[in-house]
Amino acid sequence: MRRFVVVGHKATASPGFSLKDIPGTSGRMDVLLRCVRAALLVSHGLRQDTVLYLVLLGGPDAPKSLRLRGDALKHLNPDERSTATLVQKALATTTTGPVWQPATPGFDVAAVGFEELLAGLAGSRVVVLDEGGADVRETTLEDHDIVFVVGDHAGLAPDEQAAIARSGATSVRVGPVSLHADDAIAIVHNELDRRRRGPQDS
Amino acid sequence: MRRFVVVGHKATASPGFSLKDIPGTSGRMDVLLRCVRAALLVSHGLRQDTVLYLVLLGGPDAPKSLRLRGDALKHLNPDERSTATLVQKALATTTTGPVWQPATPGFDVAAVGFEELLAGLAGSRVVVLDEGGADVRETTLEDHDIVFVVGDHAGLAPDEQAAIARSGATSVRVGPVSLHADDAIAIVHNELDRRRRGPQDS
Repeated sequence: MRRFVVVGHKATASPGFSLKDIPGTSGRMDVLLRCVRAALLVSHGLRQDTVLYLVLLGGPDAPKSLRLRGDALKHLNPDERSTATLVQKALATTTTGPVWQPATPGFDVAAVGFEELLAGLAGSRVVVLDEGGADVRETTLEDHDIVFVVGDHAGLAPDEQAAIARSGATSVRVGPVSLHADDAIAIVHNELDRRRRGPQDS
Repeated sequence: MRRFVVVGHKATASPGFSLKDIPGTSGRMDVLLRCVRAALLVSHGLRQDTVLYLVLLGGPDAPKSLRLRGDALKHLNPDERSTATLVQKALATTTTGPVWQPATPGFDVAAVGFEELLAGLAGSRVVVLDEGGADVRETTLEDHDIVFVVGDHAGLAPDEQAAIARSGATSVRVGPVSLHADDAIAIVHNELDRRRRGPQDS
């Protein structure tokens, strides 16, 4: 599995944000919604081999994490608003600690923050998308059991960076320009797609 | 200038679509809205060197084209809804044939379709993003005077392909997997960013 973890430092863990002003009422959940599309959707469907985690650290119900599994998701469309309604359903689901609770098919929620989530992924290699890292094109990347950690528009906080360092993570950059998180995810997928050289590669 | 042309075959040229259901009421304008972000925005602002054209071929007011200039745009945010309101303002602007009419700063509209738009860009090299093309990483690409043509979720129509062929265009593919138009644009930008090797490339 390719796994992506996107950290939303102010993204609300409560479902009551407004669909009329997602950026202004959700702690920039819109940044994370765009990552959902980039991580999980291709032209003709879902990336079955990808799991996306969204870490929500904003609001009184934080922390929560969302898990979206490409091999089980239903009802996912590419537009931000419809994805926002799926997120609201997940955030309205009762959570009891670190146990994943199903909200809609393939879409689960748990009351865990970044460090706990990362601990639960122990055993997978952790790679941080960071402008100071090595070039992704020149880095060995497994196509399985790999976790890419992506900051939101505010990057990663010092305690998150410390937790990542303890996990033995390495850092990669996707290019010379600082990009939105969803574009960075698209470029990582492209790099892995190219290396897989499966039957789709003509 | 890097130029991108995205063709929306059913995307409405009329401003009356619903912000509550953009995909269902606008002829999939949402596909094009996502291309706006991918083509023009990076982490800390606008791509000053990029111009994006959206060709709208749907509805009674078609054809129209929108032109968004990275060196002059204002009020552009990354979320789909706010970009949709900018598009609605542009589509409510009176157009008189092929003359670009300013709607908001850096955002212009003209009553032209795909072939006329392409004719107006004569002199620039035309490159079509196509799954059957050569690998973008192995293709010579100018960073200036280059126009990338991108189909929407339905690809390009035969008459559009014929017009492109007459322009002497070449085709490139961004990778082995068929991607959304916005992801394809992000990957092309990344390739050009890497080749530029400007001061941002540490």
